[in-house]
Amino acid sequence: MEAVNIGLIGLGTVGSGTVEILRRNSQEISGRAGRDIRVSRVAVRDKAKPRPVDTSGIDIGDDPQAVVDDPAVDIVVELVGGETLARDMVLRAIDNGKHVVTANKALIALHGNEIFERAQAKGVMVAFEAAVAGGIPIIKSLREGLSANRIDWAAGIINGTCNYILTRMEKDGLDFDTVLRDAQALGYAEADPTFDIGGIDAAHKLTIIASIGFGIPLQFERVYVEGITGVTIEDIRYAGELGFRIKHLGIARRQEDGIELRVHPALIPRDRLIANVNGVMNAILVRADAVGPTLYYGAGAGAEPTGSAVVADIVDVVRALTSDPTNRVPHLAFQPGALAALPILPMGDVLTAGYLRMRVQNRPGVLAAITRIFADRDISIDTVLQKGHDEVNGEVTIIILTQETQDRNLGGAIAEVEALSAVDGRVNLIRLENLA
Amino acid sequence: MEAVNIGLIGLGTVGSGTVEILRRNSQEISGRAGRDIRVSRVAVRDKAKPRPVDTSGIDIGDDPQAVVDDPAVDIVVELVGGETLARDMVLRAIDNGKHVVTANKALIALHGNEIFERAQAKGVMVAFEAAVAGGIPIIKSLREGLSANRIDWAAGIINGTCNYILTRMEKDGLDFDTVLRDAQALGYAEADPTFDIGGIDAAHKLTIIASIGFGIPLQFERVYVEGITGVTIEDIRYAGELGFRIKHLGIARRQEDGIELRVHPALIPRDRLIANVNGVMNAILVRADAVGPTLYYGAGAGAEPTGSAVVADIVDVVRALTSDPTNRVPHLAFQPGALAALPILPMGDVLTAGYLRMRVQNRPGVLAAITRIFADRDISIDTVLQKGHDEVNGEVTIIILTQETQDRNLGGAIAEVEALSAVDGRVNLIRLENLA
Repeated sequence: MEAVNIGLIGLGTVGSGTVEILRRNSQEISGRAGRDIRVSRVAVRDKAKPRPVDTSGIDIGDDPQAVVDDPAVDIVVELVGGETLARDMVLRAIDNGKHVVTANKALIALHGNEIFERAQAKGVMVAFEAAVAGGIPIIKSLREGLSANRIDWAAGIINGTCNYILTRMEKDGLDFDTVLRDAQALGYAEADPTFDIGGIDAAHKLTIIASIGFGIPLQFERVYVEGITGVTIEDIRYAGELGFRIKHLGIARRQEDGIELRVHPALIPRDRLIANVNGVMNAILVRADAVGPTLYYGAGAGAEPTGSAVVADIVDVVRALTSDPTNRVPHLAFQPGALAALPILPMGDVLTAGYLRMRVQNRPGVLAAITRIFADRDISIDTVLQKGHDEVNGEVTIIILTQETQDRNLGGAIAEVEALSAVDGRVNLIRLENLA
Repeated sequence: MEAVNIGLIGLGTVGSGTVEILRRNSQEISGRAGRDIRVSRVAVRDKAKPRPVDTSGIDIGDDPQAVVDDPAVDIVVELVGGETLARDMVLRAIDNGKHVVTANKALIALHGNEIFERAQAKGVMVAFEAAVAGGIPIIKSLREGLSANRIDWAAGIINGTCNYILTRMEKDGLDFDTVLRDAQALGYAEADPTFDIGGIDAAHKLTIIASIGFGIPLQFERVYVEGITGVTIEDIRYAGELGFRIKHLGIARRQEDGIELRVHPALIPRDRLIANVNGVMNAILVRADAVGPTLYYGAGAGAEPTGSAVVADIVDVVRALTSDPTNRVPHLAFQPGALAALPILPMGDVLTAGYLRMRVQNRPGVLAAITRIFADRDISIDTVLQKGHDEVNGEVTIIILTQETQDRNLGGAIAEVEALSAVDGRVNLIRLENLA
């Protein structure tokens, strides 16, 4: 059979990884796909820039539109990132009747509903395995591997930068700023790390996981987002003493009255498998009614891990080129007509347990006043840790672990505790997830 | 569209789980597949036997051939187990032009080459996700999710009975026989546990993993197989002291001159993620050139976890019903013409490191004599552990960890050590895998 021609937009990290894999493993890939796959054309911003990959035989230009409009291109692979140009090019490719593969999580999370609707109407595929957790085949596993199941929840370590920082803080006892600078020097964090450490990147991925898991439209704007900048080395140490590790999680959970969508740091029991996922690695734990818990682990970023997912998508699209469009795997796992209109629950309604750290004056009645506030709101306290020996200026640290309560209830109690004259400064809240 | 009719052979544990899932999650499943899927006909050995699942509306008979020959049946699901009847029925279904889904690892490992060749010729699919690691979508992940990669190796905890026994021995300090009896009482081990604890079941699964990973024909008869009956509570304790856990692994590794295929217990570093997979749970760690390491974790057995994989296969087959047979995912991941004729390496040629436990007389020169034997064979010793305080009748235990050497070299050294008059009884060898 004739070779399939790929038109690539963007030749940065992931683009170079994709080209390298298609070249190095061409025999393995065509042996699986049954057809040769070659990158025939690439559009880049700067044609003169040297690339870390052999581009011989590839037509390199600087006009993405020319790639998208080229009749010889069978599949457009969008690896340019961002939202504006990427959206324009993907929609134009679809309008031209071309299949699309993308690694762009922001594009899918923010414009996926529009893109998939257009693709559906044109009978083309838009594949996006690489948009979530890099090389881990989590989209395929959720959308196809678990198709027999009602998904109960998914919880993932889906931002490698956050996981690297939290892991180094714990293992080396370093503070956040020091580790962030290290991560930047090592290329594990961007020069502007806001999207990663602020949780936005994880929220993009969680949006996609939730849609596929529950069959709901993409709703990035409804995700509760908290980053890791509020996690201190003290929190990590206290959590460790109590048998927990702190991980930055994306959590999507089905409740009776709607769906929880939230990204925040969380204490999780140290003996959970996912608590042992360290460094830049990602993992997604999924609980489903028939299969029970399953976990998927691997590299969430990087040229070749992400390229691995891009190429797997290309192979999938190649296989489906001659298939009946109505029988393909639906973009959001469920047939367009079968999407559910489940509401996303406000964070205040979500049941959470809390880890609270505060500095208080070491005098009689303080702990009683604090615990009274929780009792008045019907919040059960699970654990209290107060260490006399860390007294400085007459103050000690108190750690409280609560049982589950509505999240707004926790917030209300904290505001009252902070108003006590014996409490110095803010109460640091990190949520606690059992993941059982 | 019309409903797809499933003809089921066998209504035991997995069959009942499959029927239950298709019934309970019918809305989720048809929402994904785009068509209703119903079990129309079942063949069982004993029609009178009560079943733990609602079978209303299903035509239950005792003639499997009638199911396979029924023109109204679109997909035959073989869940009868064993090799003889299963093989006959699967081949007959293929000859009738029907697609097949099976959970039968022995059938695929031993007769897969014949079955897939016949299926290929008839243009039908034979799906077998449930044959390996129950509900974990490992076949899909390896065959499709990692299609961009050259697979370097896979190492799996793929027998839940073995993992349960080893986990309980470690956690509760119990001996093998006690835990085996417990496992039998709890239903985690069969009345005749030979296939599980002897490693045959894991070898069936490893055979399939290796074929799909490397694109080689199924070669069960070439797998080196060792069970867990030689692992004692002492070994688990010493391994723990040295920073390792003992797990029963199936390992398939690509070497320059061939493929390693081996099933045996192994010490693995305790901080590896896979070392923390406990109880009846399974996990497969895969190392591939582009994506790096990925791990897949979940329940490897049980009615609904295995049924989850059966139903996912059914959905896949339903999706491909109208597809061009030449563009489907090949049974063994690679196109039939692209299978590799890589030799399977004899175990003696495989490079392994060893943990050796022996009882020796506590007198001068014994350790020197033992280590000399290793030195003469050019085997580097990594660690020696000898504890004076455990002396009984003038004998102490010595533990030796070696570096990598050819496996037959290790065997030769052990035979010489056992021949020393100062060494009492056998040397217990457990291999050591770094999995890095």
